[in-house]
Amino acid sequence: MAGSSYGTLFRLSTFGESHGDAIGGVIDGVPANVSLDLVAIQMELNRRKPGQSQLTSPRVETDQVQFLSGIFEGKTTGTPIGFIIPNTNVKSSDYDHIKEVFRPSHADFTYQQKYGHRDYRGGGRSSARETASRVVAGAIAKQLLQSIGIEFSTYVSQVGAIALNSKEFYPLSEIEASPVRCPDVQIAQQMIARIEEIKNLGDSIGGTVQCVITGVPVGLGEPVFDKLHAELGKAMLSINAVKGFEIGSGFSSLGMTGSEHNDIFLSNGQTKTNHSGGIQGGISNGMPIDFRVAFKPVATIMQDQDTIDKSGNEITIEGKGRHDACVLPRAVPIVEAMAAIVLLDFYLRNKANHL
Amino acid sequence: MAGSSYGTLFRLSTFGESHGDAIGGVIDGVPANVSLDLVAIQMELNRRKPGQSQLTSPRVETDQVQFLSGIFEGKTTGTPIGFIIPNTNVKSSDYDHIKEVFRPSHADFTYQQKYGHRDYRGGGRSSARETASRVVAGAIAKQLLQSIGIEFSTYVSQVGAIALNSKEFYPLSEIEASPVRCPDVQIAQQMIARIEEIKNLGDSIGGTVQCVITGVPVGLGEPVFDKLHAELGKAMLSINAVKGFEIGSGFSSLGMTGSEHNDIFLSNGQTKTNHSGGIQGGISNGMPIDFRVAFKPVATIMQDQDTIDKSGNEITIEGKGRHDACVLPRAVPIVEAMAAIVLLDFYLRNKANHL
Amino acid sequence: MAGSSYGTLFRLSTFGESHGDAIGGVIDGVPANVSLDLVAIQMELNRRKPGQSQLTSPRVETDQVQFLSGIFEGKTTGTPIGFIIPNTNVKSSDYDHIKEVFRPSHADFTYQQKYGHRDYRGGGRSSARETASRVVAGAIAKQLLQSIGIEFSTYVSQVGAIALNSKEFYPLSEIEASPVRCPDVQIAQQMIARIEEIKNLGDSIGGTVQCVITGVPVGLGEPVFDKLHAELGKAMLSINAVKGFEIGSGFSSLGMTGSEHNDIFLSNGQTKTNHSGGIQGGISNGMPIDFRVAFKPVATIMQDQDTIDKSGNEITIEGKGRHDACVLPRAVPIVEAMAAIVLLDFYLRNKANHL
Amino acid sequence: MAGSSYGTLFRLSTFGESHGDAIGGVIDGVPANVSLDLVAIQMELNRRKPGQSQLTSPRVETDQVQFLSGIFEGKTTGTPIGFIIPNTNVKSSDYDHIKEVFRPSHADFTYQQKYGHRDYRGGGRSSARETASRVVAGAIAKQLLQSIGIEFSTYVSQVGAIALNSKEFYPLSEIEASPVRCPDVQIAQQMIARIEEIKNLGDSIGGTVQCVITGVPVGLGEPVFDKLHAELGKAMLSINAVKGFEIGSGFSSLGMTGSEHNDIFLSNGQTKTNHSGGIQGGISNGMPIDFRVAFKPVATIMQDQDTIDKSGNEITIEGKGRHDACVLPRAVPIVEAMAAIVLLDFYLRNKANHL
Repeated sequence: MAGSSYGTLFRLSTFGESHGDAIGGVIDGVPANVSLDLVAIQMELNRRKPGQSQLTSPRVETDQVQFLSGIFEGKTTGTPIGFIIPNTNVKSSDYDHIKEVFRPSHADFTYQQKYGHRDYRGGGRSSARETASRVVAGAIAKQLLQSIGIEFSTYVSQVGAIALNSKEFYPLSEIEASPVRCPDVQIAQQMIARIEEIKNLGDSIGGTVQCVITGVPVGLGEPVFDKLHAELGKAMLSINAVKGFEIGSGFSSLGMTGSEHNDIFLSNGQTKTNHSGGIQGGISNGMPIDFRVAFKPVATIMQDQDTIDKSGNEITIEGKGRHDACVLPRAVPIVEAMAAIVLLDFYLRNKANHL
Repeated sequence: MAGSSYGTLFRLSTFGESHGDAIGGVIDGVPANVSLDLVAIQMELNRRKPGQSQLTSPRVETDQVQFLSGIFEGKTTGTPIGFIIPNTNVKSSDYDHIKEVFRPSHADFTYQQKYGHRDYRGGGRSSARETASRVVAGAIAKQLLQSIGIEFSTYVSQVGAIALNSKEFYPLSEIEASPVRCPDVQIAQQMIARIEEIKNLGDSIGGTVQCVITGVPVGLGEPVFDKLHAELGKAMLSINAVKGFEIGSGFSSLGMTGSEHNDIFLSNGQTKTNHSGGIQGGISNGMPIDFRVAFKPVATIMQDQDTIDKSGNEITIEGKGRHDACVLPRAVPIVEAMAAIVLLDFYLRNKANHL
Repeated sequence: MAGSSYGTLFRLSTFGESHGDAIGGVIDGVPANVSLDLVAIQMELNRRKPGQSQLTSPRVETDQVQFLSGIFEGKTTGTPIGFIIPNTNVKSSDYDHIKEVFRPSHADFTYQQKYGHRDYRGGGRSSARETASRVVAGAIAKQLLQSIGIEFSTYVSQVGAIALNSKEFYPLSEIEASPVRCPDVQIAQQMIARIEEIKNLGDSIGGTVQCVITGVPVGLGEPVFDKLHAELGKAMLSINAVKGFEIGSGFSSLGMTGSEHNDIFLSNGQTKTNHSGGIQGGISNGMPIDFRVAFKPVATIMQDQDTIDKSGNEITIEGKGRHDACVLPRAVPIVEAMAAIVLLDFYLRNKANHL
Repeated sequence: MAGSSYGTLFRLSTFGESHGDAIGGVIDGVPANVSLDLVAIQMELNRRKPGQSQLTSPRVETDQVQFLSGIFEGKTTGTPIGFIIPNTNVKSSDYDHIKEVFRPSHADFTYQQKYGHRDYRGGGRSSARETASRVVAGAIAKQLLQSIGIEFSTYVSQVGAIALNSKEFYPLSEIEASPVRCPDVQIAQQMIARIEEIKNLGDSIGGTVQCVITGVPVGLGEPVFDKLHAELGKAMLSINAVKGFEIGSGFSSLGMTGSEHNDIFLSNGQTKTNHSGGIQGGISNGMPIDFRVAFKPVATIMQDQDTIDKSGNEITIEGKGRHDACVLPRAVPIVEAMAAIVLLDFYLRNKANHL
């Protein structure tokens, strides 16, 4: 109940601080007797790690996952998969200057107040490094879902004001072709230029990640509180820096009337439009699921800022360290991982709806 | 796990279909030895019920809650509060015409596919009538929260394109003074005019509800998955017709840089701005919590629509029945109820963070 | 988390005090599209109710269950089944004499200390009357389990020192033929005589209930903490007056060596002996499950007893009211109900072990 | 839900197989800002490990715990404590002979049937080695409980027919003075002689562990399903080889009448006798909690046994490997660990019973 677990039947529990010995987790409820491609899991981690391109943080974290249990002779045993990702590139001294200071819009203040004691190094538990564990569990979930025909297309659809207005399913190759993980080449160029510009200012910028999921069978989602999109929303909002979530038409539905918005059924059970975003009454309807996640500009900037220390003294904090001006490209695998965890969990839950 | 329960320590389990004998619920984990104002609970229900004004459905549902347990001599006993709300104004025959038909953008199709058997009358379990049970639990939660200084201001901030751009805390009297529950008199007038217009067309329209919560102590919210705004997001997205959620700056953060967005601390621990929406790192920071919820135009319209029946035959469904052209005014107490349930649950969970 | 819910996928939440308006519950996670025999459910309740025979309490409680949701046209819809059992034979004045008094070995003292406020009438929430709600959920579970071949034989195997040393599966008719629900006619006679004797003394006596379950498929039970017998143990120990639980050989295994105790496999996968009680490593092995539950002599006796009041004054409490000298016969349907709830829950959970 | 987690607010999730790289776990919900004595935790592990004396298995497992998170500068941070215990003394080849064979009364058969794929080496996940992770979490829980005055006395009270009939609270030094962890010197001698005798026969023998807990505040335990002794029962029954559990008078209550069994209150709120075992109505009453756990003779014996292989062929399995003739001495710290986890969890849960 303390918040470090996610999922009901397929369940991830994570641990670890940014600058401790390792982060990691336990995945319980993994369906048994399924072959896992461990290389593919590591590749997902590589997509998340810093230092992939000019756009991302120059830190080099190897982010090498070590599986400790639950996999035997290449196949899942149905018992929990324990894993660790050692923290190899840890420079705790980098953070001495924030030991007694609350960085603006970080979690330093709230952690200190809530717990009375915190590992301040690199943000400790509140660091986005924790999401690497999610990527591991998500990569496993994705493999299982792919075996039943569920596919994901996740990409950066907006950086600052530069937007790709599309809910298309782009192949992974087109997404990965761009360092900014936007599959439209021209818009990607603009995004990159904008991020470089912001980076040179020592500032940061936000954006949105779009996720499209196809092949979802009809029937996933549990009314009334555990509606599929409600759980997807929670999963996304639990990712660092996320400030908004919308499913299907989302906020743009405000500009429509019911007669425009309603998705008319075709005789094959599909719908003409998909303003519902693949979910009706909280349950998947077989159409592609699409949702959009808003990330704020990250709090760490390379500029001086006013703030306070633990004693309430007003001080100026210098902008230094190694950080991304725009986290959106690295957020893509995290969004996809959380979506996969949710989908697999609901797939398993749905099995219990009939004897 | 089947989805009809919400909360961990303060926990609501609901039951009931729109046209069964009654809806109701069980609230477990109610702190003991607290006086409850039962009249105030019924008043919250009255705010949600149909037939309050020209703007809302002319159905007259008395929505009278009956408490069956957990309250003794006017005070909570710490044991579960069971309650029912009889369905008194049930006309099942109104729904014979939809028995075999899947209404566009309703849950008819997905329920039928998921369960193989459904109570089609009035939407059965998928009816928004279910939210009356949430209002009961929320009203109890709100009373308990008020006793520790937490206050809610929830109002309609947008109908179609007509918006009140404000995150102000308005007193309840100003909100309730308007049939559309928008505290700005002039904007409220425009909203009403727009709803009347849409109603005359037999169509429907969506909007947003704004919720502002003050007096929240620092420290509520459980990292990493159960961040306070993640759980608020799930709670809101679990309400019928909700398509989007944003906390603090939300989607508008995309137009800002980090240096603009960061909330600078003052020496008293408050922040100059509140783009964080009162939550940092998933934990309340003592500033007002503010979030916005997007409701699509409701699916029931008074127009003919193309659709299919259970056998996949294309048919036309006639628009009839008793429904709201705009649910936003009635959504206000539901949003507030769910917010109160989340807040109380996290208040109780936070007690376990120290010995 | 407050303790009034049981089960994970098939989940019962109960409410209600002995002398409130009604007790009842919500059953979530009921598999959809299954016909229910409502008369059979009521018959299970009748087996539990007081006043069935000379041996049981002369109170006449009608214990009539009313279903409010989740059942449509005789079949489950997969949505929660809400139900109430009105408290019709309530004489609150019977309990005025215990308002300020802590009865020995009842829950009066602990409830008062824990909650600071309690419904003292008839024991309030701590009354065994609460178990009627369990019987309703258990009766539903049993019907579903029977449709997949799982059968229960539950009976009184000991009253005081009079024991039926058998783990046989007796047909229901033989069990119900005896007012003491012991299928061995001669031993039943002795038990009855002993209970009459104790009753005449105004005293009470305990005993054991034996439960044998056949037709359980191999594979139910979730290692490591949620072993099938661990959950059965919890379910039984949660019943009022239970002080002990043993599975298979139980405490008698202390008298055996490993070579005597080990269950040797036959070529068909069955075992020669069944000291394991149908469960190995926490997982059902296809052999009959058998366990035994010890009930203490109930605390209510018709004799004067020394005790204290709320202020700590020593007083004498008079034995009066309407109570059973031996609850064992009425405990039989409760034990069976809880066993059925556990089995169905694990049956559903087991579905998630494979894709 | 897959069974590898225990507790609600103080929650342990374990992973690991006997012969994988490591076992370990995540403990979430650890109260913040508490100093931990890491040496004391390792000492608890040493109490559980094999090879401590002539009586236990000659395997030498170092069982060295490594903490990876949640502890900073010697104090808990309130974030999850991740830990691993490497499996250093792994001889997988020892188990080649059981690869295709179902050992009698082990979990080989049920795991194979349930999952379709298993790590057979040393019993894999079903090995009692998993309990080392419980000891780590229990040692942490015990330190926290001791700081609020709760103390444990856990010892072997029976081996085969040799019993110590006592519910006394013995100091740890007296328990540890004996290799069999029975604080009565003479009875301990008899137990040791009996174990040696059984060991020489290549056989095994069972027994009971007695646990006495003092200093428990009134009010722990959540009615109605999560009664304190129900959860203690589940916790104990989840330990390998446990077949029975009794609280307070337990099965011996069958020989008493209500007038003998009732615990009469004294004016200070204590009771003259303690047949209730410190728990009334599922809630602690401030008297010492005492319960007893029955362990069967372990299944691994050094004798030839008939059994079957995966194809159902009847074969003979040779007794070999490194095992304990009597696990009771090593079971003591496991019982104590699980008791501590339960108590701390209920201590934290109880905080939510009042605002």
